[in-house]
Amino acid sequence: MIRDLASHVTVIDVTHHVPPHDVRAGSLALVRAVQYLVPGVVLAVVDPGVGTERRAVAVEVGDGKAVFVGPDNGLLAPAVAMTGGAGRAVSLTDEAYHLPAPGPTFAGRDVFAPVAAHLSNGVDLLELGEAIDPVTMTPGLVPMTRDGADGLLAEVLWVDHFGNLQLNVDPEEIDGLGERVSLQWGEQRRTARRARTYGDLKAGEIGLIVDSYGLVSIAFDRRPASDELGLRAGDAVTLAEPN
Amino acid sequence: MIRDLASHVTVIDVTHHVPPHDVRAGSLALVRAVQYLVPGVVLAVVDPGVGTERRAVAVEVGDGKAVFVGPDNGLLAPAVAMTGGAGRAVSLTDEAYHLPAPGPTFAGRDVFAPVAAHLSNGVDLLELGEAIDPVTMTPGLVPMTRDGADGLLAEVLWVDHFGNLQLNVDPEEIDGLGERVSLQWGEQRRTARRARTYGDLKAGEIGLIVDSYGLVSIAFDRRPASDELGLRAGDAVTLAEPN
Amino acid sequence: MIRDLASHVTVIDVTHHVPPHDVRAGSLALVRAVQYLVPGVVLAVVDPGVGTERRAVAVEVGDGKAVFVGPDNGLLAPAVAMTGGAGRAVSLTDEAYHLPAPGPTFAGRDVFAPVAAHLSNGVDLLELGEAIDPVTMTPGLVPMTRDGADGLLAEVLWVDHFGNLQLNVDPEEIDGLGERVSLQWGEQRRTARRARTYGDLKAGEIGLIVDSYGLVSIAFDRRPASDELGLRAGDAVTLAEPN
Repeated sequence: MIRDLASHVTVIDVTHHVPPHDVRAGSLALVRAVQYLVPGVVLAVVDPGVGTERRAVAVEVGDGKAVFVGPDNGLLAPAVAMTGGAGRAVSLTDEAYHLPAPGPTFAGRDVFAPVAAHLSNGVDLLELGEAIDPVTMTPGLVPMTRDGADGLLAEVLWVDHFGNLQLNVDPEEIDGLGERVSLQWGEQRRTARRARTYGDLKAGEIGLIVDSYGLVSIAFDRRPASDELGLRAGDAVTLAEPN
Repeated sequence: MIRDLASHVTVIDVTHHVPPHDVRAGSLALVRAVQYLVPGVVLAVVDPGVGTERRAVAVEVGDGKAVFVGPDNGLLAPAVAMTGGAGRAVSLTDEAYHLPAPGPTFAGRDVFAPVAAHLSNGVDLLELGEAIDPVTMTPGLVPMTRDGADGLLAEVLWVDHFGNLQLNVDPEEIDGLGERVSLQWGEQRRTARRARTYGDLKAGEIGLIVDSYGLVSIAFDRRPASDELGLRAGDAVTLAEPN
Repeated sequence: MIRDLASHVTVIDVTHHVPPHDVRAGSLALVRAVQYLVPGVVLAVVDPGVGTERRAVAVEVGDGKAVFVGPDNGLLAPAVAMTGGAGRAVSLTDEAYHLPAPGPTFAGRDVFAPVAAHLSNGVDLLELGEAIDPVTMTPGLVPMTRDGADGLLAEVLWVDHFGNLQLNVDPEEIDGLGERVSLQWGEQRRTARRARTYGDLKAGEIGLIVDSYGLVSIAFDRRPASDELGLRAGDAVTLAEPN
């Protein structure tokens, strides 16, 4: 659809590997990529509520050099925040910019892609539908860490292709802990060692590594931490000094 | 290969997820996409008979603005029919337009891709080999519904990424049934409710939804109908009024 | 990153399906594709030692019309040899051509992609870092056949998408064997028949076919030889005349 309507556009496919219906995973994938995507039109679709009352939106960020297009279900919010915050925003109500379709179940093809193409062709945001107040948009779902009785209460944000476990933890949050850090989850307790690279770890050793997005991750050398530790996205992990 | 021979061409990769050797699944994937692909050169390869006597063909459709390239095994036939029917057609017998190759097992790279590139460069169809009568081409394998003693005998055409079950049923075919429709397969019998969107369904409720290709599909809200019901592509399902 | 720095470049994604950390599999995937990729800049990353002392390199081949960019861990060596051998080479030590990054764990994004983009923009190889002697580069890992007491000792190089088993065997190496060839591995012994295409094989018959890369492969008609025979990449197989 984008090629049909805007043949000059370069389309970059960031990923088609978001788990079905997982808005949070989609919003995190978008946050990881977004600094490398703008300026431009960013189209994102994880849309279990397609065809219902949830709004379809387009949102300008910062200086207006980028526009996000997608469902108003929290998917876009963290990326919008990271790139300067929402400026002008519209609900995509003008069907003249959509594709005729046999049903309301594929907005990616019938609403969001044509809108992204029209934006790339220079159509002004406000042509696409009714202006909305960005503060009415659904907020994101990125979890924050909390200080608990047993340590820093964190969460696995993402298991990457290699089985590394990205946590919602900035390196500064564990500045007060030493080289060795206790990890607790469920009935499990293990000790990790901070390292700079995967190759710095010994066979079977658990590492805490600042990953390529600047977050703390749990990793092994050439083995999937997810399998080794039985952890997956959304699981809670507590970080503390070892006893 | 296409880039090498026709560097100006925009290549769109529709899918590489057709199950191995499944010509029917490939032909259905092509039908779902084809209205968004033409005009252009459409290259499709699911080719278990590669290197045997099966012909390699190129077929113009409708007004000649699109050409399909692929094996003559039924893969192209439904898409050709949907886009206006076959005009001129050739068997790809002129090896001057092919790539030298160590063997006959990868026609996608060695025959079809170079031919698609040459067509994109303006080579006339009839240069590529011997003209053939389109009526001699292998017909498609898309199953039709039938009226049976117990109701409309249908078939699962496709299980999509979300586990929704696309049937070979046009909405008009079940106009005579009410809001609730009985589904029977094997020893199973369940009742589905017609709905407009996935989000309109209650948790665990089976929906009949007109999908984004205009066909009736069996779906749940945010759960894979394929897993919930144990159905997959090719399975027979009977639709009828509930008792 | 490449788009940002060199927007005129056509990016071709050969594959993202190399098993994690499998440098050998990556080097073989590159060898299969490389004759269709040059001239150009070829970026390859399978990099379990990312961030350690392993060098990041760029290597010109043959007449300088192609440059390979990647880690110096054997990944590039077979493709470099196949395309004419190494000419000038550098270690990518000039960080002015890299991306600022929060850590050293994603050289694909932060080192190799920007370097490939700068090369595409016409930056001379020697600007990118210290010149190195190509003979100091890590050699490749492609296994050679050997003559053994029981026959030709071969190895499965690759299991393709269809389950065909590509061996490290040139057709000439089995010229002395007849139409039927004994295959032995572990405690197993089976007889294969040479064929030109998959379709020439009977149901359940094992074929030896010269594949689309000019190597001998073990295959069935429309069934995965890997599953049928329980073989996978790296397994040893002995080829001999049947008793």
